[in-house]
Amino acid sequence: MRIAIDVMGGDHAPDKILEGALQALPLLEPDDKLILVGNKELIAPHIAHTSQHDRIQIEHASQVITMDDSPIEAIRGKRDSSIVRMVKFGKEGHADAMISAGNTGALVAAGVLMLKPLAGVDRPGIACFLPSVKGGVLLCDAGANIQPKPAHLYQYAVMGSIYAKALGKSAPPPSPTVGILNIGSEDEKGTQLVKDAKALIQADPSINFVGYVEGRDIPRHPCDVLITDGFTGNVTLKVTEGFTTAVLQALQKEAMSDADFAVKLKPFLGRALKQYDHEEVGGALLLGVQGLFFKVHGSAGARAIKNAVVAAKAVGKLDVNAAIEKRLAKGA
Amino acid sequence: MRIAIDVMGGDHAPDKILEGALQALPLLEPDDKLILVGNKELIAPHIAHTSQHDRIQIEHASQVITMDDSPIEAIRGKRDSSIVRMVKFGKEGHADAMISAGNTGALVAAGVLMLKPLAGVDRPGIACFLPSVKGGVLLCDAGANIQPKPAHLYQYAVMGSIYAKALGKSAPPPSPTVGILNIGSEDEKGTQLVKDAKALIQADPSINFVGYVEGRDIPRHPCDVLITDGFTGNVTLKVTEGFTTAVLQALQKEAMSDADFAVKLKPFLGRALKQYDHEEVGGALLLGVQGLFFKVHGSAGARAIKNAVVAAKAVGKLDVNAAIEKRLAKGA
Repeated sequence: MRIAIDVMGGDHAPDKILEGALQALPLLEPDDKLILVGNKELIAPHIAHTSQHDRIQIEHASQVITMDDSPIEAIRGKRDSSIVRMVKFGKEGHADAMISAGNTGALVAAGVLMLKPLAGVDRPGIACFLPSVKGGVLLCDAGANIQPKPAHLYQYAVMGSIYAKALGKSAPPPSPTVGILNIGSEDEKGTQLVKDAKALIQADPSINFVGYVEGRDIPRHPCDVLITDGFTGNVTLKVTEGFTTAVLQALQKEAMSDADFAVKLKPFLGRALKQYDHEEVGGALLLGVQGLFFKVHGSAGARAIKNAVVAAKAVGKLDVNAAIEKRLAKGA
Repeated sequence: MRIAIDVMGGDHAPDKILEGALQALPLLEPDDKLILVGNKELIAPHIAHTSQHDRIQIEHASQVITMDDSPIEAIRGKRDSSIVRMVKFGKEGHADAMISAGNTGALVAAGVLMLKPLAGVDRPGIACFLPSVKGGVLLCDAGANIQPKPAHLYQYAVMGSIYAKALGKSAPPPSPTVGILNIGSEDEKGTQLVKDAKALIQADPSINFVGYVEGRDIPRHPCDVLITDGFTGNVTLKVTEGFTTAVLQALQKEAMSDADFAVKLKPFLGRALKQYDHEEVGGALLLGVQGLFFKVHGSAGARAIKNAVVAAKAVGKLDVNAAIEKRLAKGA
């Protein structure tokens, strides 16, 4: 498998991105390759000392799309940016998966404008895991489509079910449970978008729909797949990250002043960080575009990149996109 | 001050509501009174043994609005419900503040249809505190108005600033800092609603606007007042509650099997619960209606009700509504 990595994207690029990529290499199969996309002068020194040159390829890109760039203009204007180069490379069939910690809007624009949506998919959605007692709730959309139509949310339910099932992170058969994020569980609650999406999802017997889900219940794993608009989904993801981190950091600070306490706390923090640390989750999949395109947290460190590469390798084996087109393509 | 309490609203009504009300009585001033609204047969036994009968008044209501009732129909149809009776009582000037843990939609409907909005306010918003390192970020709207217009968000910014300043929970002068909850801090981020609301808020020099705020930054207190639509606000509030509770409960469970650990953990948990437990916050104010109307969490126990009564007493002294009308009333 050939995995392309945007070395220039994210707050800690290129150093941490390259560090994570090299950490992932031994975890892949011997014939897997990494394609590092970015400024070759910056990349060269990092890989000078590795013994695995035959498994690493550098694709030079002279430009960088920053967090402040306007997504669509950036994709159209910065043709030699690491994101555009990487996606072009993947589209031409030279890479089996793409990973970037760069500008989310630009990544989504590149996915839609360059890779193109899968047959039957109107708008791709970002699918990522929120912490839960059962290994995570797959949230879709986490920010690709901030003002979706009901049909888009229905497609997220279908795609999310297929993805969660393929990952094996789901309830027993028939299929993963799907919920819609709402302000209450009662039928009359919520916006028209939520109500119309519910009607579309309920009308499809192949979706294992469990109803509306409230934010406070997410940690208890009320469903395997949680559907929402990209605005609410992105806020939910960041609020979750912000508050779990705040509590755990306060706890760690507490322990610093008391060695005995620190010792007692260590195993708990180990498990808690495993469950709540976004660096563990291995990136979010841009669900519904051709190819495998992973978005990693902008603040990603080496561990997040390493985990994203490993996750990309795993998802690469699942053929999720073929299953989605089989279900959603018109006349399928 | 006369504080009316809906004894029938909430998951633990009437017992815990009455218990909390009686716990609050000694914390008020000697001439303050409580008006308990609900089924008098259920209330009587609870207050039989108190020595403060002169400070407690029972207003009988034969009906209850449940969580499943459709708000507007319930307010119009259940004229003898504890919510309608309480609000009618307050509107007629017999109570200075109202408190309920009942159906949020019904409370908002009662506030809008019966109490009426303040002069210059188009739609009231629910204002409540999210945990932060500086005593809490005032979130508005937390669920009263799930599809607001930009002008509504502007009014929340004005009302929230006035309320936060009155509470003394704000940055040093000139006035409380105000942020808009968004999916990114950059100008091009967000929905048209967010962008239009930003333009309106920036155009008012009396608002100390600090820009867009991301969910992950809330625990660090990025602003004193955080403005958002009622859908996103309600989800944010519940996600915050769900995940902080999940982490702290996991920690408590851990400590149960280890006495030494439990001892070390106790002071931290005490502080953490003080900061994160919604029962501490004392209820949410329905900001922008005539009168003082507090919504308490549906799962409220005695402590939440007690704190809400104490908070109502404190807010009652501030004359927030007069200040809001002075600022927003047409031609003011």
